[in-house]
Formats: sequence, structure tokens, C-alpha cells
Amino acid sequence: MSPSLVANGDLTPVTSGAVKGRVASVYSEVQTSRIDHALPLPSVLKKPFKIVDGPRSSAAGNPDEIAKLFPNLFGQPSAMLVPNNVNTLPADQKLKIGVVLSGGQAPGGHNVICGIYDYLQDRAKGSVLYGFRGGPAGIMKCKYIELTSDYIYPYRNQGGFDMICSGRDKIETPEQFKQAEETALQLDLDGLLVIGGDDSNTNACLLAENFRSKNLKTRVIGCPKTIDGDLKCKEVPASFGFDTACKIYAEMIGNVMIDARSTGKYYHFVRLMGRAASHITLECALQTHPNVTIIGEEVAAKKQTLKNVTDYIVDVVCKRAALGYNYGVILIPEGLIDFIPEVQHLISELNEILANEVVDEAGLWKKKLATQSLQLFEFLPQAIQEQLMLERDPHGNVQVAKIETEKMLIQMVETELEKRRQEGAYKGEFRGQSHFFGYEGRCGLPTNFDASYCYALGYAAGALLHSGKTGLISSVGNLAAPVEEWTVGGTALTSLMDVERRHGKFKPVIKKAMVELDGAPFKKFASMRDEWATKNRYISPGPIQFTGPTSTAVNHTLLLELGAQV
Amino acid sequence: MSPSLVANGDLTPVTSGAVKGRVASVYSEVQTSRIDHALPLPSVLKKPFKIVDGPRSSAAGNPDEIAKLFPNLFGQPSAMLVPNNVNTLPADQKLKIGVVLSGGQAPGGHNVICGIYDYLQDRAKGSVLYGFRGGPAGIMKCKYIELTSDYIYPYRNQGGFDMICSGRDKIETPEQFKQAEETALQLDLDGLLVIGGDDSNTNACLLAENFRSKNLKTRVIGCPKTIDGDLKCKEVPASFGFDTACKIYAEMIGNVMIDARSTGKYYHFVRLMGRAASHITLECALQTHPNVTIIGEEVAAKKQTLKNVTDYIVDVVCKRAALGYNYGVILIPEGLIDFIPEVQHLISELNEILANEVVDEAGLWKKKLATQSLQLFEFLPQAIQEQLMLERDPHGNVQVAKIETEKMLIQMVETELEKRRQEGAYKGEFRGQSHFFGYEGRCGLPTNFDASYCYALGYAAGALLHSGKTGLISSVGNLAAPVEEWTVGGTALTSLMDVERRHGKFKPVIKKAMVELDGAPFKKFASMRDEWATKNRYISPGPIQFTGPTSTAVNHTLLLELGAQV
Repeated sequence: MSPSLVANGDLTPVTSGAVKGRVASVYSEVQTSRIDHALPLPSVLKKPFKIVDGPRSSAAGNPDEIAKLFPNLFGQPSAMLVPNNVNTLPADQKLKIGVVLSGGQAPGGHNVICGIYDYLQDRAKGSVLYGFRGGPAGIMKCKYIELTSDYIYPYRNQGGFDMICSGRDKIETPEQFKQAEETALQLDLDGLLVIGGDDSNTNACLLAENFRSKNLKTRVIGCPKTIDGDLKCKEVPASFGFDTACKIYAEMIGNVMIDARSTGKYYHFVRLMGRAASHITLECALQTHPNVTIIGEEVAAKKQTLKNVTDYIVDVVCKRAALGYNYGVILIPEGLIDFIPEVQHLISELNEILANEVVDEAGLWKKKLATQSLQLFEFLPQAIQEQLMLERDPHGNVQVAKIETEKMLIQMVETELEKRRQEGAYKGEFRGQSHFFGYEGRCGLPTNFDASYCYALGYAAGALLHSGKTGLISSVGNLAAPVEEWTVGGTALTSLMDVERRHGKFKPVIKKAMVELDGAPFKKFASMRDEWATKNRYISPGPIQFTGPTSTAVNHTLLLELGAQV
Repeated sequence: MSPSLVANGDLTPVTSGAVKGRVASVYSEVQTSRIDHALPLPSVLKKPFKIVDGPRSSAAGNPDEIAKLFPNLFGQPSAMLVPNNVNTLPADQKLKIGVVLSGGQAPGGHNVICGIYDYLQDRAKGSVLYGFRGGPAGIMKCKYIELTSDYIYPYRNQGGFDMICSGRDKIETPEQFKQAEETALQLDLDGLLVIGGDDSNTNACLLAENFRSKNLKTRVIGCPKTIDGDLKCKEVPASFGFDTACKIYAEMIGNVMIDARSTGKYYHFVRLMGRAASHITLECALQTHPNVTIIGEEVAAKKQTLKNVTDYIVDVVCKRAALGYNYGVILIPEGLIDFIPEVQHLISELNEILANEVVDEAGLWKKKLATQSLQLFEFLPQAIQEQLMLERDPHGNVQVAKIETEKMLIQMVETELEKRRQEGAYKGEFRGQSHFFGYEGRCGLPTNFDASYCYALGYAAGALLHSGKTGLISSVGNLAAPVEEWTVGGTALTSLMDVERRHGKFKPVIKKAMVELDGAPFKKFASMRDEWATKNRYISPGPIQFTGPTSTAVNHTLLLELGAQV
């Protein structure tokens, strides 16, 4: 494809199965410049290699139950690619491989696909790569396109998942597994690459188990994707997209910090995407040094109440006011409310009451609430009370996700500050500004780190499928070193699993990796937050740079977890 | 200052009058790399020059009234710097100059200060530069610091106004003018540079007139600052900060577009900063090609109602649904409501009623509303109705600024779509997501354009003050050309002025430059918006790059206004 086509827009891939999207797009100069950014490969992938199996694996918990759920796969060793004199995989084997994007977007997804495509071109010439469209539903409905060089080209190093789009369907029921089998047979698939988060990788493993139990030749490999950063373990040190998303949010937070310091009159409450775990909030704090950072896992571990959280913020605001600072920046994880036990109690009581009782104007219904829940309810700002009472999902449940936690906290802080003012303990001025940074970060142009990491993950997945592996998750390690020195392999998905009891049955789950309160990133943060609270150590990371000395930086969380001193 | 100090944080300027702020800061790698970014100067500023006066000037309107308000300054010629064999200004003149930042922040403000500082170092060695702290209040209270090389250094090419901070006070009353005179006398000021928007530059001119009428030697030069882009004219083709702010917003919009296309299920309603004029929204549209863009000036010119605006959006949503697109991106200027006459009527009627009448539960009070206002009120979503009734400023007025227009429009679009669904005219699915991009853009690291433009504006202001000019606004032109070819001069502030009648008196005002419906940027947009509405021509500009081929791009508005075809 000639560069002029790219520069002038109207990228028209040669293939007929074109996705409506980039086809009709024009590209910005930065997007165009990224397409031809050369992707480095770990040196082991550049030369002949062989695949070496490790010892027999177990499970993250309840190995007996996992063994029952995965009779064909349990105990599989992990695999490691090591340099070899000759290639051990047949270069003339023509593979038929499918790839699917599952769940929310994360920067770098397109590069995983580029990686496996290039592997097949380089090492199994004549192979075919199918992209299932719209997520796992594409597998079940056999909706796919054949991915060609021309088709893939404009998506190299680009954000988004729009090359084949994603979806949140799951392959769960016997009928759905049957549909997946039919697709595998119809396309004569040798392998399937599932790019997704913890749920999707659990699903990938179930699919691998199912295909094997039916004696299908189709292997399944997973790939760790989520901006939330909560799919990781020793062998899989990071999920892709986290690096880019955090840097985009940190750019905005840094700007808001400079704004806060320049105007000197606003407290910016920034809610950050990441419902289950607070990794994004923690990483953004390490990058920018806000005055207050709430980490959900700490709130839960300390069994803090909403009043505790409010008081902590108010204490900092008062201390700062005494120092002459009536401004600040406060980071809040999207999932904060989910971490507070009393809020969970209140919500389940409300769900019960609203389903069965008449809610009278006079408020007699409130007598049905437990004392602690009533106290909390009365403590909440009126707007939040109304939201809890009025906005319900189709099942009649309170929609926690719709609560704008940052606005709620602003109101609660205002109320508490007013009380302290009455008591003479606060003489400052407080004006809150709320922000939510979420969608902006999921689809940005991937950083050089995410671009390279994803390319290696995809390329490695190609090697694993080529060698006949199944039920592994593509694993690229030694990430603090230059790309050449990265290690490459696959980790048994069953080794990441535990079980949860649902509806009386054991279900396999890959446990979400939460922020560890004794992990290096949290400890680093905890050792500095008091200084940040009052001393304004703001850092403004600025926009992501794709060239120059700052373009190869890696996020703090990963470096700290890998043992670096940052 | 050694680079290691910067890299390790704890920048401690040598001067004693240190602003609490960057002093205690640590810098990100990108911030550090920007400090030493070399700032190019227009060639006329690099060699000996002389200042040539143009013809006598007039006013933008009502020249007779402007002449009365500015008896000493009216009619002043504009000034142009032209190359000369020798310098005509005395290099040994030791000047005492003050500088002040006024109003909201805009990326590049620090570089204006660096520019005038470097001018004095280069061309009037031994001069002193005072920075008035916290805006015009700093002048009135004589709160200042002496700016030194060490002090200024860490702020080079950095965002924010925190070097000396800003403020929104105005020098208006005779007492305040007296205070300003006292400061000028106390510091023995030869000149004052006022960096601000339309109001601040009007104020600068009044100060210049006042100093001259009192025979003070203090000259006053203005500098065009505002991210809103509404302070510009032929001689002053752009206000600084607009370029950076728009690029930051466009980065986020572009990301959200890729997200919209990848998930295929959200309509993102993005409200953009810019209350008075819709330049930012228009520029962001030109950079990113959204499906719908509302331009306030067009809404006002066509006397559109809120229902018209809603219907326009709904029409696009329906057309897109018919094409299979249940997603999109919609840009809305912050000031939309101010452009809609019927909303203004409703609000003034509500202010009247709420001040004087009892608002009864049964709604009898609504009979006091004019028919059109009542219709509009009933058309508004309930949450907005409540906001209008409940949230008042200290004067008891409805707080229009607090209305989240993007959320209001989402609700109105939902309601209208439901109606069309009932009528069988719409079969799609609609889920709105709201965004407000504002504070994130005001304090970002300035683009190379804003960095160079501001440096030239500041350097030019030094030359104008050195040559004894007063009542001019620093003017740098030919901005589509390379920096070397930029023209440099000063424009009579009175020539930008008209009068407005307030409280029975004529007040001078620099008219805000609104989006011109027959101007090149709007016409370009208007010629393409129908295509963008249905055809998904999304562009994702990506993060601002400071090096490489994309780092010197200039915004579309400026280029189109300068006659370029982009």
C-alpha cells in the first residue's frame, strides 16, 4: 500500500471482507507515522528455536477440583522457547488459525493479531488467519474474515479493536460449545487465539478442554488483555493495554495538577476506570503524585466506611488549608463503592425493600433498614439517595455503576468541611471539580511498550499453536530488559485457576490480581503519600512520546513488581 | 542549573522570592526534555531592527466614542519591526519591566515571560523583570518577585501559569487605578506586559491611557492569551494556548472515536470548553471529523431552539441506525445554552418568578411563564427542570454554567428517539456517554507552535516596551510560514475596540471574535459535515509529539483563516 493512500485517507484494503471502519477512514499524521514503526522481536523469536516443557503444573487453588474440571489439560507443563541450532517446527506446515478479541478494548490488541499473522508468514508460509468478528459470538455464528497482509497493514500499532471488533458474549452452554465445535470443523481450524481478560482466558481454557475431549485438532491459546491490569501472575507479568491507558490518564491528571496549582482554588476529584482492582489508580498515583489517592483494596482490607474515606480526604484538605493551599488533586478508583462493605449491605437491603415494600413519602420504609444502613443512607447526599431509589437495572437492582463516586465524595467532603468550619477547625475555601477518565484511555495509540509487548505475545502464540500446544496463555517475560532479552513461552491456564461455587457447582476462575498491600507498588505509594498530601510533589508526565528518549519508558507498577527501584 | 537537579526533582531556584510550586516539584522525563527545547526566533528578532510606524488607526466601531475614552492613545499607528543595519534602541538602557498573567490559563504563558526576559538580557542588559503575583491583584497590592534566569529556567516550555500565578481581578475603579500608579512609581516601572484575553487587554489599554494621562513613564503592552481562540483579528491572527488545548481535546476525542467504532454501542456526547465562542469545538471537529458538531454561532444565527438541535442530532442517529451504526461521536460547545434565545428567555422568566412568587407543588406557578417558555420547560428533562428550580447563585439566579448540556442533550435525544420508535421511524439502540473536556487542556505542555509563538510574542513585547510604545498588543504574523519568516510588531489596542453601553455609560470592549459562518474554517466544516454524519471519517490525532515530522503541525483554524487549503 502506497504511503499516499494512507496520507490521503480512504484506505481501501484489497480483500473483499472489509470491516466497515478504517476502510473509510482518513489517518492523522501521527497515526500514519505509527503504521511503519518497526516492531522489535525478542531475540529468541528471530532465530531458530525449540520449545522446552517445564515441570508438571498444579492450580492456583483447589487443584483436585480443577483436575476434575479439566481432565485433559490439568497438570500441563508450561512451555519455554529456547534458542536452537535448527527450527524444530515444520516450516511447510500450512495452518488454519482463528483469532478473536473478547471483552473491553485495550491498546495493542491489533498488534497481537499482527504478531500471529507475521509468525505464520515467517514460519508457516501458506497458513491462513481468520478473524472472528464481534468477539466470541463470531466464533459461535462462524462470522469471520480472512486476514491478509493488505487488510492488516493499516491497523499496525493503532489503537482500538475495530479490525475485527470485540464482544462480551461467552461460550458457556453445551449448545454454544457445540456451535464453536462446528465452526472449528467447518474452517478446519488448527488453532484459535483468544485475546481477552480473566473471564475470556478461563473460557479459552474450557474451549481447549472441550476440543481435546472431542478429539478435535483445534488448539486454543490465550493472551492477557485488560487495561485494568488485574490479569497477571509470575509468568504473565502484565496484561497489555495497562501501560498505555495509565499513561493517557496520567497525562490528563498531570495537566489538571498544573491547573490546580496555577489557579489555586479547585480540588479536582478524578475517578479512574478500573472496577474490580485499583491498579490503574495506583499506577497513576505513582506517575503523578496526587494529594490523595484512594485504593479500593486498602479500603476493603481496613474495613473502612464511606465516612472513614471522607474523613481522610477532609483531614488532608484541612491540613492543606492550614498551609495556605486551597487546591489539590484526588484520585478515586471507579470501583470504590464495591470495596466498602457497608455500602454493599445498604444496597442489598434497598434491593430487597424496593422489590417488596411500598416506599412512602414520609419515609416510614426506612425503618426496614438495619441501623448501620440507615445511618449510611442518611449520611449520603440527597442526589445519591435519589439515585439509589430511582435508577434500577432491568432486574430491579440499584445501579451501582451509575453512581458518580467523585461527585458523591465532593458533596460529602463539602458537608464535613462545613461542620469543621462551624467547629472552628477549618478556615479554608473548597471548590470541587469532578472528572472521569475512562473511555479516553481504552483506545489510544499503544505506547512503544504495549506495541512491542503485544507483537511478541501474538508472535509467541503463533509458535505455541504451531507446536501443537493448547490451554496455555502466551507469556512474555523479563519485561524490564530491552525487547531483545525478553523471554517467550506459554503458561498452563489451569495453573492460574481456582474454583468458585456458583449455584451449587464449582466453576473455574482465574482469580483477578488485586493490588497487594504488601507488594512493591503499594508500599512505594504508601511510603510517599503523606509527603504528597501536603507538599505538592506533582509530576506532569505530558503526552506519550513515540520517539526520543522518553518513548521507551515502562510503567512504575511493572518495574516495581519486577524488583526495580524507581 | 545542572540537569541532574532537574532530573532528580527538588528544583530549588537561587532567588529568595520563590513561588511555592515548581520549587518542590519533581519533573517527568517529558517535562525535563522540554526545558531545553531550543526556541527559534523570527529572523527579524535575531538581527538589528528598527520599528516603523504604520498609518493612523481608528477603532473597530464607534471611533468617536473610543476617541473620547482614550484621548491620549486613540489613533496610534501600529508598529512593525523591520531589519536594519544597526540597532536603533539603546543597548545600555536598563529597563524596569513588570509582567502579569491575567485570567484563565493557556499553554505557553510561561514562554511569553521567557521571551521578554530573554529580550531584556539580549538587548537591554542589566534590566530588571518583575513578575506580579496572582494576576492584576498583584499589581494593585504590589505583590511581586524579581524574575531571574535561575528562577525562570524550569518553566521554559512548561504548561500552567504557576511561575507567578494568575487571577481574575480587574483594575477598574479610580482607587484601583491609583493603586496601580503607586506600584508603577514604587518600582519605577518603565513598562508593564499584560498577558490576557479580551477583557484583560481592554484593561491594559485603559491602564496605558491612565499612565499616560498622569505623565507616568510606564508603558503598557498587551499579549493575546486565551484557549478559547476568540481574541484575534487581522493583525493578531491567533491567541496563544488555542493550538495546544485543541490538540489535547482532539487526542481524547480521537480516542473516544476509536472506542465508539470498536464497541459499536455508544454515542459519546463531548462538551468542550469555550463559553463565548465555539472555536474550540469547530477546530476539534476539523481535526477529528465527528458525526455531529453543534456550533453555537450557527444555532444563534439560525435562531434554533433546543428542539431543533435535538431533532438534528436525532435525525443523524436515525440515519446512522438505518445504516447499521448504533454509535457515534457528538461535539457540543460549553456555551451552547447561551446561544439559544428561548433558553435565555426561560431563564430570565424563572429568575423573576423565583424571586417574587411562591413555587407551589401543584405547578400553578408555571402559569406565569410565557407560552413558549412553558413549552420549553416542559420539554426539558426532569433533572434539568429541577436544576433550574433549585441551584441558584448568591444573587438568586439560575446557574446556567452548572447545567451539564451534554447530559441534558442525551436525555432529550433518548426521549425523542423513543417517540420515533413508537412511530416506527427508528429501530436502533441508543446509549449515551457524556464527557466534558476542559481543565485537561488549559495547562498542558505547550505544542511547539504555542511555545515558539509565545516566545516571539514576549520577545516582541520587550522590543515594543524598549522603544517606548504603549497601548499596543504584541503582534506576530505570517504564522503559516516557518518561524524565521514570522512578522513581528504591535497593534494599537484602541483599533480593536468598540463600545458597549452599560449602566448608561459607554464602556470600551474588544469584541470577541466569534466563529464566522462565512469564514473558511466554518465553511470547510459545513461542506463536510453531512459526509461525516453518516460515513465515519473519524481521525484520531493521537498525543501531541514534540519531535519528529508531526511536531510542527499548526491547527486547522489558523491555517484556513490564513488562506491555506487543508
